Amino acid sequence: MQAAIKEAKAGIKNQDGGPFGACIVKDNQIIATGHNCVLKNHDSTCHGEIDAIRKAENNLQTHDLTGCEIYTTSEPCPMCLAAILWANIKKVYYGCNLQDNEKIGFRDVKFEKLMGDRSHLPPNFLEEHDRNLCLELFDEYSHLEKTIY
Amino acid sequence: MQAAIKEAKAGIKNQDGGPFGACIVKDNQIIATGHNCVLKNHDSTCHGEIDAIRKAENNLQTHDLTGCEIYTTSEPCPMCLAAILWANIKKVYYGCNLQDNEKIGFRDVKFEKLMGDRSHLPPNFLEEHDRNLCLELFDEYSHLEKTIY
Repeated sequence: MQAAIKEAKAGIKNQDGGPFGACIVKDNQIIATGHNCVLKNHDSTCHGEIDAIRKAENNLQTHDLTGCEIYTTSEPCPMCLAAILWANIKKVYYGCNLQDNEKIGFRDVKFEKLMGDRSHLPPNFLEEHDRNLCLELFDEYSHLEKTIY
Repeated sequence: MQAAIKEAKAGIKNQDGGPFGACIVKDNQIIATGHNCVLKNHDSTCHGEIDAIRKAENNLQTHDLTGCEIYTTSEPCPMCLAAILWANIKKVYYGCNLQDNEKIGFRDVKFEKLMGDRSHLPPNFLEEHDRNLCLELFDEYSHLEKTIY
């Protein structure tokens, strides 16, 4: 999670996007890190998890991340959660939750209500981890800028 | 939809990925087309809709596709559906449905059961369009190769 937070902090300082970083790990090795680049890349799909998945797959030259786990500063939105499933990532450790995202101005909760239902996922697939550290990151973001998308 | 099908056909001939193409339109003008490049790019997130969204946003130099509609050869999976919502696309016209996707070996139905629920979307947000033409595309794909991901 430290690597995910570091990515997110670099991203918000550059105004790349929101305070969202991710790190993909396999066999205790970091495969890739990524962060939200929605603003920088003019790409609404470039959330932290998607950025990390794309980099990990490029690094391993595969579209299949079987055996990998992902650490992300925020509970994945429906887009990123489905991306994680398509990539065959086996476990998600997230810091802040969807409600925390809403408090800093992001629409994850709205979209989860519109099209999401996590009740059928395996019970340990999503696990909260280091929320307090990630809340500090969110607080830092809140004091940096107010861009909402 | 013709442009989306044309994209998909070019993609499967090059073995870029599955038979999925998309076209984004604004004010009756095509902004961008895209197709599934999961295999070509080693990128499990590069579904047809996501490829088209990235290209449209790059073409318009924005992360906001307000006022746009998307035509896609297949009903969007949860990842692409959420990507469409994040991009503020107002309407989705799809050809084949999720069950058609399952018949040619893709996991959309599985992921929809695991994390999706479309019952809260506006009733006309998703609209079937030219399914028969898209089923012909799926049939062509089925006879070309059997790669499943």
